[in-house]
Formats: sequence, C-alpha cells, structure tokens
Amino acid sequence: MYAITIPEPGGPEALVWDEVPDPVPGEGEVLVEVVASAVNRADLMQRQGFYDPPPGASPYPGLECAGRIVGTGPGVSGWAVGDEVCALLAGGGYAQKVVVPAGQLLPVPEGMDLERAAALPEVACTVWSNVFMISHLRPGETLLVHGGSSGIGTMAIQLAKAVGAKVAVTAGTKEKLDFCAELGADVLINYREQDFVEEIERATDGAGADVILDNMGAKYLDRNVRALAVNGRLAIIGLQGGAKGELNIGALLVKRAAVSATSLRARPLGEKAAIVAAVREHVWPLIDSGHVRPVVDRELPMSEAAAAHRVLEESGHIGKVLLLAP
Amino acid sequence: MYAITIPEPGGPEALVWDEVPDPVPGEGEVLVEVVASAVNRADLMQRQGFYDPPPGASPYPGLECAGRIVGTGPGVSGWAVGDEVCALLAGGGYAQKVVVPAGQLLPVPEGMDLERAAALPEVACTVWSNVFMISHLRPGETLLVHGGSSGIGTMAIQLAKAVGAKVAVTAGTKEKLDFCAELGADVLINYREQDFVEEIERATDGAGADVILDNMGAKYLDRNVRALAVNGRLAIIGLQGGAKGELNIGALLVKRAAVSATSLRARPLGEKAAIVAAVREHVWPLIDSGHVRPVVDRELPMSEAAAAHRVLEESGHIGKVLLLAP
Repeated sequence: MYAITIPEPGGPEALVWDEVPDPVPGEGEVLVEVVASAVNRADLMQRQGFYDPPPGASPYPGLECAGRIVGTGPGVSGWAVGDEVCALLAGGGYAQKVVVPAGQLLPVPEGMDLERAAALPEVACTVWSNVFMISHLRPGETLLVHGGSSGIGTMAIQLAKAVGAKVAVTAGTKEKLDFCAELGADVLINYREQDFVEEIERATDGAGADVILDNMGAKYLDRNVRALAVNGRLAIIGLQGGAKGELNIGALLVKRAAVSATSLRARPLGEKAAIVAAVREHVWPLIDSGHVRPVVDRELPMSEAAAAHRVLEESGHIGKVLLLAP
Repeated sequence: MYAITIPEPGGPEALVWDEVPDPVPGEGEVLVEVVASAVNRADLMQRQGFYDPPPGASPYPGLECAGRIVGTGPGVSGWAVGDEVCALLAGGGYAQKVVVPAGQLLPVPEGMDLERAAALPEVACTVWSNVFMISHLRPGETLLVHGGSSGIGTMAIQLAKAVGAKVAVTAGTKEKLDFCAELGADVLINYREQDFVEEIERATDGAGADVILDNMGAKYLDRNVRALAVNGRLAIIGLQGGAKGELNIGALLVKRAAVSATSLRARPLGEKAAIVAAVREHVWPLIDSGHVRPVVDRELPMSEAAAAHRVLEESGHIGKVLLLAP
C-alpha cells in the first residue's frame, strides 16, 4: 500500500507519499481500507518531530479515518468485512489501509457520504470526553469555545446547543464568527478586536463561563481563569499558546473551579473504547437525526497532505480538512 | 453573650473576649449554645484582616462548633431544642451562642463527648468534599496528604484508609510522622529532609499519586503536578505557600490530570447542606463505629483564643485545637 511517511521531520514537504508494507490486524483489531482521513493539529506536530506516536502505534500520521473493513483479526465481534466505518486512530490514517482496535470503530451515520465520516471521530470524541464526560456541561450553562470555527469548535458548538447550553466562541475573522453563528453560537467574540474576558462577563451578567474548551494553553490560562464562573471547569486540549503559564490558584479557589488537561491519543485502549462507546450512545443519534453535522472545509488527495498541512498552518479554514485516499 | 471579637486586625492579641448581642435565628436556622469551637487556619487569616466573613455571616471567627440547640427559627424540621449537635459555620463559633442554618447541623456521633465533636465538621466536610466528591478517590488508589498531622490531614488519612486507599503523608517532624503512621498512613515523608516527588515515585513504582490533597498552593504546584499519576487529581484547599504559581500544562496534559481549588466557607447554603448530608451518610457511620476518630491536640478556654492561635502559628500541634466556651 501507499502511505504518507515522514523520512525526516520538518515542514509540510517532509510528508512523502511512499510505498510501505500493508499492516496486519492482530487480536481484537480490524483492517480498514481507508477512503478518507482528516488533518489534526497533532499531525503537524508529529511532522515536525515534536509528537512521536505512542508505543505500538503506526509510524504514519493520521488520527482518524473512514473506510471499509477488509479483514479482521481474532477475537473481533460485532464488525464484519464489508462494513462501512469511521474510526479513532493512534496513527496511520494517512494511508490506504490501517489497523484499528475494534473498540475504536464507529458506524457511518445514516445517510452520510463515507468520506465525510472521516471528519467525525477526533472532534466527536475530544468534545464529548472533555466537555461532557470530564467537565459535565449541563443544560442552561454557558460554554466558551476557543477557536469556534475549527473542527473541534464546530462540533463543540453543535453538541452544546443540542443539550441546551448557551455557547460563546472566539475566532479571528468575521467570516468565521458568522459561520459559528449559523451553527448556533450565541456570543461571538473576535479575539483580534475584543477581550474575551470582558465579553464573557457582559454576555453572562458577570457570572462567567461554566465550561471553557481551550486549545491555547499557557497564553490564555490567566484569562480563562478570570472568565470562569463559580464552579467553572476549564478543559485544556491544546498548547498552541505554550505549555507553561502562571496559574492564579487564589482566583481558582475563590471560584471553586477546576482545570483539566487531556489528550486522546495517549489514552490506553480501554479508555478510548469507553469514550467511543459514549460517543456512539450520545453523539451518533444527534448526527443520525441531522441535529449535528460534520463541517468540512475542503477535500484534498491524500498524496497532497503537504498542501493540507499548509491550510491548517495558515488557519484560513473552517472545520475539517479531509484527505482522500486513492 | 460573650464572643471573641476583632476590634482591629492584627496578631493573636487582636482577639478580644467581649460582651456582644445574642444572635437571633431566622427562617430555617437554629440557635446553638456553644460548648466548644475549634481553630482553623482561616480564623488566623480573618484575625489578620485577610479573610472577611462572607455577606450575612457572623463577624466573629469560628467555622465550627459543638453544643446544644436552645432555639429554632421558623421552618426548621428534624431538629429540636435540647438536641446535642455539631455544626459547620460561616463564622461565629468563637462565642457562647451561634445561629446555624439547619442544613449545616450534624448529630453528635454515638458515645462521643460533646466538646470533641467540635473537632469534626470542618475536617470531615473539607476532606469528604475534596477527596471524595470532587477527586473521587477509589479503593486501591494512592492519596498523598500534605500536612498529614494537621486536623485535615488526620481526617484524610483515616477516611482514605477506611475506603481501602493507600496513603502517603508529608510532615515536618518524626513525631508527627509517627502519629500519621498510627492513624494508618503507609508512606511517611519528612518534607524537611526528603523530596516528596521522589518518595512518591519510589512508593508507587513510578506511578505517582492518584489524588493529592494540598494546603500549600503555589509553593508545591509544580512538584504536585510531577507527583501526580496518569489521570491524577490535585485538590488544593489552602494557599499557605502562595496564591500564584507556574503550572506545567504540558505535564498535566500528558497525564490527563486535573487541578481543583475550593474553599468551604464561601459556598452557598445549598452546597454546604449537600456536603453535610454526604458527610452524615458516608463519614458519620465510620465515626459511630470507631473506625475514624477526631484527633484533638489540646483544649483551651475560649477566652484564651489568642494562645490557641499561637499554637497553630507555631505548627507544633497534632490534630485540632479546641476552644471551650464558659
């Protein structure tokens, strides 16, 4: 098969479409013929040599895919050759075939084009696990989503609205904020022109955000704590603004608030399977019924993964960038 | 009645035993004739002028008491004049009488001297809400308790052992550590001579602590994050080592860990009542059966509250310092 390899870490040109051995499914795994994968920020870090795959994972990038099962290892039940699926991966999605633990498979939602389903696993699992399983967003509460027009952001807006929460978003352009509004966002904050702490305060009559989904890490840490409500929960899922920042523990204590930080990729199989099962139970019905949809910015041939990485690096996209396998 | 007043914030001598008006119970409140109160670090801060009582609370210090109900306001059920009780207070325990919302009352445990029950409410509610309700310590997990010989520490050791957790403690003297061992602590760390991160690593085969109960705040923040296990929870309940510290979000993210910070005093009545109800359900049976006991360092007359504050400031005590009302 062919896959995107990274012979030497570096810029987008480091991604090389090359022939590699087919993977072989082991105990509890299936072999999926990939129709599409999608680009995540973690892939860019892996390309640059800053985010090695966890032990045992494929060396190729790609944390999600959609495709068809073409083989099963021993001990797999509930899935069969020919099934159309999408999947959460520890790596290897940028390839014509990938091996997937059965617990990380999801059915393709009703009526959805197979390749679009590749836009779902990472964002659905990340948002559900952080905003709902860890931070317990409840109806009537306010969620602040940083980067509202990202793949994660567009899923977070829709899921939070679906459960009856109020949603505030930050983004860097009017076009992106308008798109967030179409998805249901109630409060639109242009982070280039407005202070999100002030805007959240204004939008919540001074109460603050009950949950914040953050991809910036250190750069936003202090302001996020200031923007939190009493009993607020800050869920950090990215470090785009740095990994070390000053925490105002006093402010956190007065608010009885909490800060969590997680990644999906490094979780053991059991935890991933539990998240995927929760997503199938809670998120999939909302997609099947059309209340929540994947947002796809564009589709590119998988061999042009370098161009797709440049799209994410320039941050001009809205939603997910898909890679179609040949 | 008489109460400890604070005419001017300052050192222990700022505490003045003086005659003041009797409080009057309102809707849903009872009037308690205080037999004993106990000293908390927050009282020292209030005395120094750094921790004003929340709106509506008594201006006198004292966050817990034991005594007898001598009056009830309208709308109180389940409690009657003559009942022996202990109670969580928003203030006013250093007095001959105090008004208490009924949701913050607890019965005196079976067979316990009334005055010793004054040592229970703050530590039981703080430990239960943080270690169990927020941080969900589970059987077989490891809890690290900083200040293991404090009132909070002695309760945390006993409760964690009662649910089947492994307990590590830090303290500053061999005498204090020996006492923690008597209460059941498995791992004893002298913070003056040992690095608790290294000791926790050694004691857990490199896994780290699943839950840390911390009273130091900034000073320990980085080391606490390093000492946490994967999926670890750091519960901060004090800022004795400062209120602002650098948080290694990257390390937190790799561990999928969380940091919470809370105080009990500022919580609204409903949250306090929920915590007190959980303590009555889960902690009281362990006290009734003798598996968990209050640890009392000494008892002093309430009019000598200044001497009691000096005991806490010198940190020579083990467990709680009680104040007996005349």
